[in-house]
Amino acid sequence: QSLPIFSSEEISKHNSKDNGIWVSYKDGVYDITDFVDLHPGGKKLTCEKIMLASGGPIDAFWNMYAVHKTDEVLEILEQYKIGSLSPEDQKPIDLNDPFSKDPFRLPVFRINSKKPFNAEPPIELLTDSYITPNELFYVRNHLPVPEIDPDSHRISVDLGDSSIQLSLEDLKTKFKPVTITTTIQCAGNRRQEMSDFKTKGLSWGPCAIGTARWTGARVRDILLSAGFDPDDKTIKHVHFNGFDDDITNTSYGASIPKQKAMSLDGDVIIAYKMNGVDIPRDHGYPVRAIVPGYVGARNVKWLRQITVGSDESTSHWQMNDYKAFSPSTTFETANYKKAPSIQEMPVISAISVPKPGSIIDPEDGMVEVKGYAWSGGGRDIMRVDVSADGGNTWQEASLTKDDPDADDSAHCWAWTLWTAEVPVAAGKVEIICKAIDSANNCQPEWIGPIWNLRGFLTNAWHRVNVTVEN
Amino acid sequence: QSLPIFSSEEISKHNSKDNGIWVSYKDGVYDITDFVDLHPGGKKLTCEKIMLASGGPIDAFWNMYAVHKTDEVLEILEQYKIGSLSPEDQKPIDLNDPFSKDPFRLPVFRINSKKPFNAEPPIELLTDSYITPNELFYVRNHLPVPEIDPDSHRISVDLGDSSIQLSLEDLKTKFKPVTITTTIQCAGNRRQEMSDFKTKGLSWGPCAIGTARWTGARVRDILLSAGFDPDDKTIKHVHFNGFDDDITNTSYGASIPKQKAMSLDGDVIIAYKMNGVDIPRDHGYPVRAIVPGYVGARNVKWLRQITVGSDESTSHWQMNDYKAFSPSTTFETANYKKAPSIQEMPVISAISVPKPGSIIDPEDGMVEVKGYAWSGGGRDIMRVDVSADGGNTWQEASLTKDDPDADDSAHCWAWTLWTAEVPVAAGKVEIICKAIDSANNCQPEWIGPIWNLRGFLTNAWHRVNVTVEN
Repeated sequence: QSLPIFSSEEISKHNSKDNGIWVSYKDGVYDITDFVDLHPGGKKLTCEKIMLASGGPIDAFWNMYAVHKTDEVLEILEQYKIGSLSPEDQKPIDLNDPFSKDPFRLPVFRINSKKPFNAEPPIELLTDSYITPNELFYVRNHLPVPEIDPDSHRISVDLGDSSIQLSLEDLKTKFKPVTITTTIQCAGNRRQEMSDFKTKGLSWGPCAIGTARWTGARVRDILLSAGFDPDDKTIKHVHFNGFDDDITNTSYGASIPKQKAMSLDGDVIIAYKMNGVDIPRDHGYPVRAIVPGYVGARNVKWLRQITVGSDESTSHWQMNDYKAFSPSTTFETANYKKAPSIQEMPVISAISVPKPGSIIDPEDGMVEVKGYAWSGGGRDIMRVDVSADGGNTWQEASLTKDDPDADDSAHCWAWTLWTAEVPVAAGKVEIICKAIDSANNCQPEWIGPIWNLRGFLTNAWHRVNVTVEN
Repeated sequence: QSLPIFSSEEISKHNSKDNGIWVSYKDGVYDITDFVDLHPGGKKLTCEKIMLASGGPIDAFWNMYAVHKTDEVLEILEQYKIGSLSPEDQKPIDLNDPFSKDPFRLPVFRINSKKPFNAEPPIELLTDSYITPNELFYVRNHLPVPEIDPDSHRISVDLGDSSIQLSLEDLKTKFKPVTITTTIQCAGNRRQEMSDFKTKGLSWGPCAIGTARWTGARVRDILLSAGFDPDDKTIKHVHFNGFDDDITNTSYGASIPKQKAMSLDGDVIIAYKMNGVDIPRDHGYPVRAIVPGYVGARNVKWLRQITVGSDESTSHWQMNDYKAFSPSTTFETANYKKAPSIQEMPVISAISVPKPGSIIDPEDGMVEVKGYAWSGGGRDIMRVDVSADGGNTWQEASLTKDDPDADDSAHCWAWTLWTAEVPVAAGKVEIICKAIDSANNCQPEWIGPIWNLRGFLTNAWHRVNVTVEN
């Protein structure tokens, strides 16, 4: 008996007990409605996480929770098979919509903007694995995702006098491959918390951040091979330009200091692999810049050109977007020319467990709190303090780091995950976390003194309000 | 007529209008009591600064206020000459006092501890010159100042298998000289502000910080010349041991990460010049380590040995002193083994003008505020915000930097001086400053959340209370 074929769209409608809980895995479609209550672990949290996967592919979830990848589990899943996934489950292309060729994304994303696509994974998944699965990595696109033919694609390295063109194959074979584990964070991560004030920008929660292992060639090696003189004092910036462009053929662009690009310690690469596979289209296929410890915006996707210059990139995104302002600066007084570009990121942390609004049944008066902490510039996390009594007492969290590249704190590009056992009183409780990095920088206590009209760099203490049962 | 000879001690008694205002310059002694009111500029502030120089040598002050170094000014000074400085104005040596051979210091210092000598310059002088004059540079000694014969002194570079001995001459001739302008700050700078709580340590004001141009040889070059293999993964730390020791012959020691010592970007040097002259005894004559962007304690003075190791230095000062703790850690719960050593310093700023308690006559409702701002790790200062209304509104300060070595923000080892014009209301006013560094880190608002039992790393917003006249 041949099973029916279902489209992604059809599957996505089955994401509740009422409509049935469907998932796809590889090319199979499964109705797991009856299984949810049987799932081992069986805890409320597990059920919630299964529900996050409902209505879409579970492949990424199983990559994260790798315990599923056994023959036994696959046999269980096979019992629930109801059909196959349509090979043509992509929507027909609308030629008038520049975003119509954007790739498929998991329904689990919290979408801040559809076009361009800007979305973050749910907080309860974010810190379950040290390496963020590609399919769950936050997406911050500025323009439509370009379609690039990897065979004909060339990266142009233009140095004024001289110029070289590199194919993807050149990039992979002519330069020593380097793998860097780095956390990338959007300048607007946690902007939502500035929403009590007037801000301009996408209302990101705390999940516009993720960690991946990127493999590619050092920008230093590429520039040197193109004949760049690192001692040329007139050159102060290295520019990256993307393939993504708008109706006026203006493409995304950004620049970083030459010092960062050329330093052996800077670890700036042009990556062609993300966690061991080709970079997904949303993350820059086939090649993107990776600038560890810097704001996400400089990790230019769909790279088509590297140039050098005495000044910063003149792109909109370098000159008039990712800039830092004082709390007293208004849209009227903002001087974008004078304001510094956001480059290195400050220390930040956030609570991923429990979720805001949770009702908690404490064990022996203690609650387990989890989250992430990170700092830019290669700085390690030295300590995370957690409080459930308004900061009167602090518990030190246990820190976990799983970064094969970090053999000292100066190259610590990737985040730290943490867990703390915190004593809680019954009733309404605010849980607070704050991190200290290896330069002994700390997070500000509240939004007020760091508020800025663009809502960037929200790194105040993270606060989650919950109810603790008696 | 031959003028009398005076000792430093005698001169130091004449430091007020009542006792007469005496100063020395080179080998001359001058009674300038009648001149103070005639001093050009004639403002209250100028008089106060002359008073700071009274009772001691004015050479350092004139180095800072270089306008004095003209024949005209010297002629004026000559009119007030009353004698010559005693060639033997050092106190007789007490053989039972290990500190008896400590060098002469200016009476202007605010002394936190005499033995070992720990002192800071007055705040109203601190930011008058970008480069802190050697004689006014804060002193933080842990032990008596050793007497070292520069000709016989050897620096031992011990790598386990191999060892080399370097004379001062070797250091100057065998390695390329490098000059680094860097700010050095004591971990305890501004500890006084934590004094409402219980802290252990010297009660430093905001002047345990200074900036100098240091000339020396790169530690990287020295270690490579001694045969050190930078790729040896078993080696993670570079140790510095001093010549200063206590009664048990235990000398001062500290270590820094190998990454910092070996990086071309780290700019770690063994210095033999401070601002172009031999390093003064209080600052490490003849040689000291300079570790830009790190806590003062790792800039080991009177260097006698460089070693490498898999672990940090086992010295008291590395293991049981300069460490960071959570606000909830007590002397009973402090785990020095687990706590991280303080290395890179966080962003800080302080107000030098006006002084606390000043009575201010504003011009058009504005007051001029000055100060310093600095961040560790080579991070530049991006912005300084100043408020006189409790942080409701902030004025951006004008920033000044005079660092010839800093051609980009990644090597920005030295501080930024700043000036702001701030609107003030009449009455009691608290002036606040806060700085943002190039990694977008900011200072915490108050002491509470960063308080620690040792009183280190006091980088909260700096607050100065003044009275503004109607």
